[in-house]
Amino acid sequence: MSREDEWPVRQLRMGRMEAFSDGVFAIAITLLVLEITVPEGSDSDLLRAVLDQWPSYLAYVVSFATVGAIWLAHTAMSEYLHHGDVWLLRINLLLLLLVSFLPFPSRLLAGSIGNPDAAKVAATVYGLTLLGSALAMSALWRHARSRNLVRPDAGDEEVVALTRKLTPGLAGYVVMIALGLFLPVVATVGYLLIAVFFIVPIHRMRRSAAVRAEGG
Amino acid sequence: MSREDEWPVRQLRMGRMEAFSDGVFAIAITLLVLEITVPEGSDSDLLRAVLDQWPSYLAYVVSFATVGAIWLAHTAMSEYLHHGDVWLLRINLLLLLLVSFLPFPSRLLAGSIGNPDAAKVAATVYGLTLLGSALAMSALWRHARSRNLVRPDAGDEEVVALTRKLTPGLAGYVVMIALGLFLPVVATVGYLLIAVFFIVPIHRMRRSAAVRAEGG
Amino acid sequence: MSREDEWPVRQLRMGRMEAFSDGVFAIAITLLVLEITVPEGSDSDLLRAVLDQWPSYLAYVVSFATVGAIWLAHTAMSEYLHHGDVWLLRINLLLLLLVSFLPFPSRLLAGSIGNPDAAKVAATVYGLTLLGSALAMSALWRHARSRNLVRPDAGDEEVVALTRKLTPGLAGYVVMIALGLFLPVVATVGYLLIAVFFIVPIHRMRRSAAVRAEGG
Amino acid sequence: MSREDEWPVRQLRMGRMEAFSDGVFAIAITLLVLEITVPEGSDSDLLRAVLDQWPSYLAYVVSFATVGAIWLAHTAMSEYLHHGDVWLLRINLLLLLLVSFLPFPSRLLAGSIGNPDAAKVAATVYGLTLLGSALAMSALWRHARSRNLVRPDAGDEEVVALTRKLTPGLAGYVVMIALGLFLPVVATVGYLLIAVFFIVPIHRMRRSAAVRAEGG
Repeated sequence: MSREDEWPVRQLRMGRMEAFSDGVFAIAITLLVLEITVPEGSDSDLLRAVLDQWPSYLAYVVSFATVGAIWLAHTAMSEYLHHGDVWLLRINLLLLLLVSFLPFPSRLLAGSIGNPDAAKVAATVYGLTLLGSALAMSALWRHARSRNLVRPDAGDEEVVALTRKLTPGLAGYVVMIALGLFLPVVATVGYLLIAVFFIVPIHRMRRSAAVRAEGG
Repeated sequence: MSREDEWPVRQLRMGRMEAFSDGVFAIAITLLVLEITVPEGSDSDLLRAVLDQWPSYLAYVVSFATVGAIWLAHTAMSEYLHHGDVWLLRINLLLLLLVSFLPFPSRLLAGSIGNPDAAKVAATVYGLTLLGSALAMSALWRHARSRNLVRPDAGDEEVVALTRKLTPGLAGYVVMIALGLFLPVVATVGYLLIAVFFIVPIHRMRRSAAVRAEGG
Repeated sequence: MSREDEWPVRQLRMGRMEAFSDGVFAIAITLLVLEITVPEGSDSDLLRAVLDQWPSYLAYVVSFATVGAIWLAHTAMSEYLHHGDVWLLRINLLLLLLVSFLPFPSRLLAGSIGNPDAAKVAATVYGLTLLGSALAMSALWRHARSRNLVRPDAGDEEVVALTRKLTPGLAGYVVMIALGLFLPVVATVGYLLIAVFFIVPIHRMRRSAAVRAEGG
Repeated sequence: MSREDEWPVRQLRMGRMEAFSDGVFAIAITLLVLEITVPEGSDSDLLRAVLDQWPSYLAYVVSFATVGAIWLAHTAMSEYLHHGDVWLLRINLLLLLLVSFLPFPSRLLAGSIGNPDAAKVAATVYGLTLLGSALAMSALWRHARSRNLVRPDAGDEEVVALTRKLTPGLAGYVVMIALGLFLPVVATVGYLLIAVFFIVPIHRMRRSAAVRAEGG
């Protein structure tokens, strides 16, 4: 099996890939706050200056929710993996490249939301980065399934459920990217909703609330 | 139990959530130092310039102590958890959203402490972020208890003690937020004291000193 | 064996060194995005401003691929180590010193690519940092082999294959550094290709594609 | 033993404290590179501009070596600990407060080295931060010994050797701080030498070179 130039790595422990990914996710999610600043000399009316920063807060929350959703997906997926291989690491590097790039379109978005033409460009760059991340996440799981990296004791039903969650909402993203060409702020809110519904499926929310109401 | 859209995740290992949270805490706590700068051209009297930065040091120490206290609480709590579930991850993401936001109000505070009106706004934003973090931390533990995520071998007394520690000092924060509307610097020192007493309960300090004096 | 001033450390667990290294790699790889900014006042034609940033994207991708390749090599290597010693930590600190320095030459490169003379200086500084990192990585593995830190159950063939991968392409880097004195952009693309082929050996790519075509 | 306000934490696993500390060390050590910049408009003679940044490189190397030395000491120490307690976490937070503060005096030093008066202030602030870190590191180990947190199987000789390594070179730092009031650059080089000799004891270096010469 081994080729002369290939890495002599067969059954990688998952720990290292998880630790490195968690590091990148944690930093990408935390760097976003560095983008939020109030203009110099806004001491005379700081409340207004703070409120005027709403595009930065919006961009912060959208990007935080998106990275959080990717982290959640990555964690759920790696719970189902028995071991890794070198191609898993390669696809994972591609995913991390896109995630760690996110602070840049996020900053573009925050800085341009007051200018319709600029906001359209920013929303498009933002959406393409999200679409790329979703595709990389999906490729990671497809690779794991096709190379038998999934834990043998994983139930078929669970694997199917996870596959459904990790199949990117291509249609959703394409619609939002198209929408962003006309209504960039609406598309930005759309990206937030996609991430939040990904993290917390709405049906489950209602049901869980019901369970809590009964149980609590 | 499983719904069509829910994550097929039942008994999560805690390691991943701990590693990601530690990453975010570590970065949030370390980024704070980037806010501390001396003005350009202060070489002629650097000592004075360094001393004039006291609001930055105060903000640094307050935020460091607060994130440190949250980290300590998070660590103590997760020692008592047997496993996680997907809602624990969700509430944890909310906590991390607030913690990683902290460098922004921290910077506001450091930059506005010389201007009473601005400092009142900054202290209020700061206090609300802290209050939110305390509520999220408390929600995390309440969720863990209500869903039986706590280790079976945890003693009742210990669980009660931890619950008491993790019940947010709502009254304390509300008083400080109100106080910050009039005396922002006093409120800032108050936030420091809350964090330090949270990390090191004063009774225990005295007792420990006594034990040391005897034992050492 | 133990000298008076030496650390009393014999068989170090690898976990700590891996965690610290993963932290540094993750941060170095993520900080790169902070260098990418669009000029103030580019709202009027943001698309052009975004496209004009191509040197920053190139520098970002080259540095990401390089740090990714080093991380992959570090992970593959540490899979083969049974334990560490204090010299392994020292050589590892040297590697991390070079890797965490990389954002600086990366920024130099991104900022100077439009100016041939400046770009030559930047490409040289960049190439020397890469060469140093490759030498440190190689020294790490050589040390591990000479001090019997390699797992006893590692196959000879695998150890030879890993040694071949971790022997730095000295010739390749020297050629690129020399080339960079005349054609800095070509050398930069060369650094990208070295990193990508290191991550994904091309023979294996073709073969893997064939296997996929058959298997899929 | 338990007091009403004390954390109900008895035998903490070390993993969490190690992960959080590694995160802070990794970030503090990597943030240092953000301080290194060349002035705007230095494209016309980038080589000179890069060389003129030598104070930044010096500060970078000194701070990297210092954080590296602290990390090495922290790792060696935690190899000998069987478990932690809540006071260990508290002293550790104090250590991390000082380590994560280091980028500020490091930046002061890099920015003021051309101005003797400013450099004296910067070298003093720098030295005091290092002295504080060394004291906190030492307190951590003293606490571990006095509270029986050390692994039962640790040899007496090893514990003594580690104690000797972790006893801060108070005299050395005090001398350097005093020296820095007159010769700040010499003191800075002194801090570098202290860190490097701490990482690599010189006797051992010579001996190791001899062993290598024989063995290799």
